Amino acid sequence: MTFIRPRGTLKAGEGIAVSLTAGEQLRVVNLRGSQVVDLWAVSTSDPDEYLSMEHTHVALAKLVPRVGDDLYSSRRRALLTFAEDTSPGVHDTLMAACDAERYRLLGATKPHANCAENYRLALNDLGMETPVVPAPLNLFMNIPWTEHGSLEFRPTVARAGDRVALTARADLVVVLSACPMDMNPINGFEPSDIGLELLSA
Amino acid sequence: MTFIRPRGTLKAGEGIAVSLTAGEQLRVVNLRGSQVVDLWAVSTSDPDEYLSMEHTHVALAKLVPRVGDDLYSSRRRALLTFAEDTSPGVHDTLMAACDAERYRLLGATKPHANCAENYRLALNDLGMETPVVPAPLNLFMNIPWTEHGSLEFRPTVARAGDRVALTARADLVVVLSACPMDMNPINGFEPSDIGLELLSA
Repeated sequence: MTFIRPRGTLKAGEGIAVSLTAGEQLRVVNLRGSQVVDLWAVSTSDPDEYLSMEHTHVALAKLVPRVGDDLYSSRRRALLTFAEDTSPGVHDTLMAACDAERYRLLGATKPHANCAENYRLALNDLGMETPVVPAPLNLFMNIPWTEHGSLEFRPTVARAGDRVALTARADLVVVLSACPMDMNPINGFEPSDIGLELLSA
Repeated sequence: MTFIRPRGTLKAGEGIAVSLTAGEQLRVVNLRGSQVVDLWAVSTSDPDEYLSMEHTHVALAKLVPRVGDDLYSSRRRALLTFAEDTSPGVHDTLMAACDAERYRLLGATKPHANCAENYRLALNDLGMETPVVPAPLNLFMNIPWTEHGSLEFRPTVARAGDRVALTARADLVVVLSACPMDMNPINGFEPSDIGLELLSA
């Protein structure tokens, strides 16, 4: 739950906030290859400006960003560049972060770790708050769509060691959550650790 | 810019807030058949709870809601039921509302009416504020996707007189904006008026 410099492990089911200055690069390593990572970014200078999947859809005219694409904020500013991806390129921009209610609806009878809480707690550790939990960029999350618009929750297709790198285009706090979902197949029913590496500009 | 009871016209490019009590139904009529309508809903009892496209994606496992589907809030509560649709059923849940910056990026050199401002102003008229402009449900908006995830901004396929009806599942403020976009083809380059009808429970 603290900044990492220059590398560290994000435990299965947990969240972390990483401070990036413009030009720095964050690598997210899918150590076991079966783990989804929810990712958010908030401008350091103004927490009301956040990475927005719906604004990124408009800018890219794509459901899933590819290497070379920028990722845009709620003010249509490029916050991150999708700089590297050794995985098959299957990520999700459609699905809300899991939260306590999501697990209750899936049948959980006890409190369950969840990405929305990880997001709030990681920001709170920095003395930051945001009014909402924006839709995350769900790295490695496999939500295929059909021509008729059906969506499905499937296991990741990433392989052990696959990594994604994002370059900050502004001073940012990036929050990551190694998704604790174990009640549908997205993490192969067994959430696992994620490696993080910070590369200077 | 005031409540409508029981019917009215939403002028091309303008926004309106409509108060609905649970059970009431709002009909949105595409008078000319070429107009996109951005739609938001906020809980009357708690403006922090809003209609969320990303939570609706999770609940429905669909890109586009169909008649009979519920539309969900940021707290995973059904706020609206998609009760009727005489159009070809082409709507969008992916694209951010247009805003001042969007028009600047498209080349506008003067201030341009926009859906995000219509949303804020319509709520302000009711003494309400929300911390962000959520991703809207874009009625009649034609954003086809390909199997590879490309998206495209195309003209509506709705016909003159096509209508959608939404039934409130809670006490809500619904905000609608007859999208003023005239710099891409979504409204056929000529925004037009929208008919609204309120039906009691």
